[in-house]
Amino acid sequence: MIGIGVIGYGYWGPNLARCISEAERSELASIADFSPAARKRAASRYPAARIEENWQTLVSDPRVDAVVVATPTRWHFEIALAALRSGKHVLIEKPMASSSREAAILIEEADRRGLTLMVDHTFVYTGAVQKIRSLITDGAVGDVYYYDSTRINLGLFQSDVNVIWDLAVHDLAIMDFVIDARPLAVSATGAGHIPGSPENMAHITLYLEGGATAHLNVNWLAPVKIRRTLIGGSQRMIVYDDVEPSEKVKVYDRGVSIAEESGSTTKPDEIHRMLLNYRMGDVWVPQLSVKEALLTEIEHFVTCIENSKKPLTGGTSGHRVVTLLEGATQSLKRRGYPVELAEMKAAS
Amino acid sequence: MIGIGVIGYGYWGPNLARCISEAERSELASIADFSPAARKRAASRYPAARIEENWQTLVSDPRVDAVVVATPTRWHFEIALAALRSGKHVLIEKPMASSSREAAILIEEADRRGLTLMVDHTFVYTGAVQKIRSLITDGAVGDVYYYDSTRINLGLFQSDVNVIWDLAVHDLAIMDFVIDARPLAVSATGAGHIPGSPENMAHITLYLEGGATAHLNVNWLAPVKIRRTLIGGSQRMIVYDDVEPSEKVKVYDRGVSIAEESGSTTKPDEIHRMLLNYRMGDVWVPQLSVKEALLTEIEHFVTCIENSKKPLTGGTSGHRVVTLLEGATQSLKRRGYPVELAEMKAAS
Amino acid sequence: MIGIGVIGYGYWGPNLARCISEAERSELASIADFSPAARKRAASRYPAARIEENWQTLVSDPRVDAVVVATPTRWHFEIALAALRSGKHVLIEKPMASSSREAAILIEEADRRGLTLMVDHTFVYTGAVQKIRSLITDGAVGDVYYYDSTRINLGLFQSDVNVIWDLAVHDLAIMDFVIDARPLAVSATGAGHIPGSPENMAHITLYLEGGATAHLNVNWLAPVKIRRTLIGGSQRMIVYDDVEPSEKVKVYDRGVSIAEESGSTTKPDEIHRMLLNYRMGDVWVPQLSVKEALLTEIEHFVTCIENSKKPLTGGTSGHRVVTLLEGATQSLKRRGYPVELAEMKAAS
Amino acid sequence: MIGIGVIGYGYWGPNLARCISEAERSELASIADFSPAARKRAASRYPAARIEENWQTLVSDPRVDAVVVATPTRWHFEIALAALRSGKHVLIEKPMASSSREAAILIEEADRRGLTLMVDHTFVYTGAVQKIRSLITDGAVGDVYYYDSTRINLGLFQSDVNVIWDLAVHDLAIMDFVIDARPLAVSATGAGHIPGSPENMAHITLYLEGGATAHLNVNWLAPVKIRRTLIGGSQRMIVYDDVEPSEKVKVYDRGVSIAEESGSTTKPDEIHRMLLNYRMGDVWVPQLSVKEALLTEIEHFVTCIENSKKPLTGGTSGHRVVTLLEGATQSLKRRGYPVELAEMKAAS
Repeated sequence: MIGIGVIGYGYWGPNLARCISEAERSELASIADFSPAARKRAASRYPAARIEENWQTLVSDPRVDAVVVATPTRWHFEIALAALRSGKHVLIEKPMASSSREAAILIEEADRRGLTLMVDHTFVYTGAVQKIRSLITDGAVGDVYYYDSTRINLGLFQSDVNVIWDLAVHDLAIMDFVIDARPLAVSATGAGHIPGSPENMAHITLYLEGGATAHLNVNWLAPVKIRRTLIGGSQRMIVYDDVEPSEKVKVYDRGVSIAEESGSTTKPDEIHRMLLNYRMGDVWVPQLSVKEALLTEIEHFVTCIENSKKPLTGGTSGHRVVTLLEGATQSLKRRGYPVELAEMKAAS
Repeated sequence: MIGIGVIGYGYWGPNLARCISEAERSELASIADFSPAARKRAASRYPAARIEENWQTLVSDPRVDAVVVATPTRWHFEIALAALRSGKHVLIEKPMASSSREAAILIEEADRRGLTLMVDHTFVYTGAVQKIRSLITDGAVGDVYYYDSTRINLGLFQSDVNVIWDLAVHDLAIMDFVIDARPLAVSATGAGHIPGSPENMAHITLYLEGGATAHLNVNWLAPVKIRRTLIGGSQRMIVYDDVEPSEKVKVYDRGVSIAEESGSTTKPDEIHRMLLNYRMGDVWVPQLSVKEALLTEIEHFVTCIENSKKPLTGGTSGHRVVTLLEGATQSLKRRGYPVELAEMKAAS
Repeated sequence: MIGIGVIGYGYWGPNLARCISEAERSELASIADFSPAARKRAASRYPAARIEENWQTLVSDPRVDAVVVATPTRWHFEIALAALRSGKHVLIEKPMASSSREAAILIEEADRRGLTLMVDHTFVYTGAVQKIRSLITDGAVGDVYYYDSTRINLGLFQSDVNVIWDLAVHDLAIMDFVIDARPLAVSATGAGHIPGSPENMAHITLYLEGGATAHLNVNWLAPVKIRRTLIGGSQRMIVYDDVEPSEKVKVYDRGVSIAEESGSTTKPDEIHRMLLNYRMGDVWVPQLSVKEALLTEIEHFVTCIENSKKPLTGGTSGHRVVTLLEGATQSLKRRGYPVELAEMKAAS
Repeated sequence: MIGIGVIGYGYWGPNLARCISEAERSELASIADFSPAARKRAASRYPAARIEENWQTLVSDPRVDAVVVATPTRWHFEIALAALRSGKHVLIEKPMASSSREAAILIEEADRRGLTLMVDHTFVYTGAVQKIRSLITDGAVGDVYYYDSTRINLGLFQSDVNVIWDLAVHDLAIMDFVIDARPLAVSATGAGHIPGSPENMAHITLYLEGGATAHLNVNWLAPVKIRRTLIGGSQRMIVYDDVEPSEKVKVYDRGVSIAEESGSTTKPDEIHRMLLNYRMGDVWVPQLSVKEALLTEIEHFVTCIENSKKPLTGGTSGHRVVTLLEGATQSLKRRGYPVELAEMKAAS
């Protein structure tokens, strides 16, 4: 039984606490939050857990084997580092840290101490994303041509981070899991339409190894909620629509391929048209696991701790995502000027 | 009665010919196409029209008052220039020309001769786009914050032009009509996934005067057909979904605004949150005119000729669109490097 | 503060208990369930409530002012009657009772003792149904022509009641609330496709006072989930789609009306066509209250108790619904043979 | 080459004429319509065809091998009978005739003369319905449990026939083709909401041989257009949505089955629940033929004439459909009173 402490009982912390208490081999040992109202809610919901005002107390508690950091991003680094130094395994809310430098330090600390360091990239643990990963791994998609995602709605404006750090982080985490090719360069554009608020709309293009591309459209100021990702491949194409109550993942046997042909005397542009085959086949909607993603994730965290296994969304994955957030933000400030990501490959 | 000749009876020409023959004050005088099969189809459908092999014959025919150019883009300039020089009014398929330089020459020629020069930006004449224009003009939208469009499907790959010249041209033409602010700079990214074919996927960001932004997502290699535009404004937001059989335009009374407040002793980021008001009001789906857009357009062309009126989609509009296509293509080759469009303002 | 006891902590009871504990002027005094597992769950969730094995103990507890009956339908009558006889106010899960005779006895008992008797027709307390009610009351819909509802999915087969008592009860409760005209006759058809199980599919037509009609389509064995109701009226028509995450209620300014015309010499069937006007106007999607329906309902129950007010979904409403369930089941057994509902009017 | 004459050039006749002229082995010999305006349109569109005022002239024309009857229903019988007596093959618009008696006479006449008699049940020739038929024939669906269809919109009110004869006829024709079990009884309800007009809304239940059921919901006075059919089976279920631009047919590997189990000591209703297995598998969207249904039908008509083959939608199919229309109308007048269809089986 792994005893887990949760730091931060605001928006997401209660979900983490619930899954920890539901998972079979973990125990919700304690909860820390500086807000008296949050502590009161936590105490009435989990009478058996210790409720702390200071995270420092939680981090040094010997009954706590692992710490979940669910605070605002700017405190992730300090708390996670202190927890690792106290010998605790750590699961951090996304984004992992405020900078790739902080993320690298956490990775190093965890590695040296042989502790599990994991990032809460929740979507990776959904039935939908797991299915997409296996469709790509199994070769059903063929060569991945592109990943094109839209994640928009009328959302809560953040005061400290722009929409990239709030919404694009989800897509970067999913992409990091399902696509093996690493990004080489990023071009991002965006705008803030509400005076005094950070950018609420951004479009990010990533150039990947081997010629594939990715594009993310994120927006806090959209009239409708869209959560849709298209993945184009040489064999099949995928539409992942997370707003759909069922049928979230559709696999299309559609595409374009070049017919092989030898000699020909037709005019060049007619040749081109003749050699393209358009394929319009069936659509297939696989049944997905409906197990709650966060519960799956907590169980995976516990398994990694027990067996000293590398998590699916470990520190290096969190670091890659933060590096992309940094690169995108940098390009956005320069109106799409492309930023090379060579340094990212070195670090990961 | 205006006698009109159609040059090019391939994919789009038959639609133009049909509308010319249906419109009240125009007459389909002649049709020219170098392909014998096309001429045969034209002759059986329009026994009363003259059928020509050479466009030169059509252009010099005195029974022809106006010429419609529906050939591939690379021939637009030569044919339109010859028609203007023969004193004919001209309607050109989009994109107006292969370069902004060509477009500027055509404008000059038409102006000098007092002839009507119009570009076939068909979407401008749909009930949907007309309604959007009036929602913006009437102030219902408020300040326009952004225009974000997706136009993707598994489409016919072109051999000579990339997806921007084939698909984004529609959105640029719509935008040119509904939004008054002019683009100042463009950043575009894209990729070609089929060897030997031009770019089949592109994402274009436009920075407009006054701080608004536009983004276009175009793709020939998508598994599903999407034709959706979001327009965000300070008062209302619009979703225009052209795939919807009815309810193409929805108007959302939604948005975010800043409350005015004077003194306060709260912490800065809480102030920020407190001052934002989220508005989630009703949705309204206006009934749209269902008259065929192309017929409306032909009638408008005839009216402009008869009254020496400036068309809604005249040469300068066509020129602005071509300038944006050039700028986007230039940026795309440099991975999103932003291209300034100062020259465009000068020309328009 | 009204002390409330919940009898039955199976599928729906936990939701009722949660809303009772969240509502401002009610207190969750006790919970009874014969299942040890259910009692254990209740105790860990509500440490302050008394947990009972026998409902009789709960019903005679002086700290309990009101009882919520959330057991299987066949026990509603016995428990509710005992609760009323102990002087408790009563809220009963739908359907109110196994027969209209039982329902009538409960009404009489509550009336004689001056106690509040309410039925948990939850949908009546949703923002969507409240809005539909006001659209009809305000005259926006005009004369109601029809109510046509589809409520199907792959659902849990019940062993003791057919699909009418499980699903159509929702639509009958909504209809009873939004439409004033009372049903005069019912014709129902249906079938059971799984040997040993009750009817899993049924179609019910109701003939209402004044010429309006209603139709309900219910099915446990459908591949997709549909929850859609159309309401046709002389002025406007409504589509209520409960599966939609937002935009649940749409109001259509569409319809057919007869133009007034005096003398004419045209042929009869041409006259008929000429005199019909088809109206295709705008669509309007009102913003709805998003407050949880069950919480609204519990607060309404408490308000009715405190002020001796008649509930929106009181015993007579529950009785009318049960009468319709009886009539439909009777007609279904006779393959649609119409059943008159005169007795229902007398009772209500 | 089969010479075909079209009688009636109103709403549907032009489509038939176009397909006859496009089909490879048929020739559009002549067109008859009593309306001068219709004749003028026909002549300008088909300069090579003979244009007649009287259908009698067309029917006795020796250049005409086959006659297509596209007039209002009330004239079908007289014209078709005359055509058969002149030795012409006949294709009749649906519904085949105004009564089953008339339909039987036409069948007998065609049989005696060895002529092809076919009914224009167009939907039978769509890729969607052909695919559904093969899914049922191949056993993919298993035993058919039910057929449940909704066909509603704001439609043109007919003055002489009710909505059953106008809309339900489509569903009955599709059902007649895809399901082998014959209807034994019908219960129908409905209402007319516009004074002076026939019933604009109807709900029809059919009891089929072997225990399957069918239900049709038709409505001329609905705010939205719905064209959706659900087919439930023991192995798979189908959703056929004709409004969908693509993905019209979806096949669901979903259902409920009874597990075989021997001895058990649990209580009866728990046994029942335990023995039911709910299957929630994948969804499959087969690619469909996109060839125009009417063209396919005309070619089939010609093939049947050339080879003396029985058409897929011959006179007996048309007769069965008319018998069901009669039965449904009869039951509707008696508020759902079930009507036995024994006579229908005898005739077919």
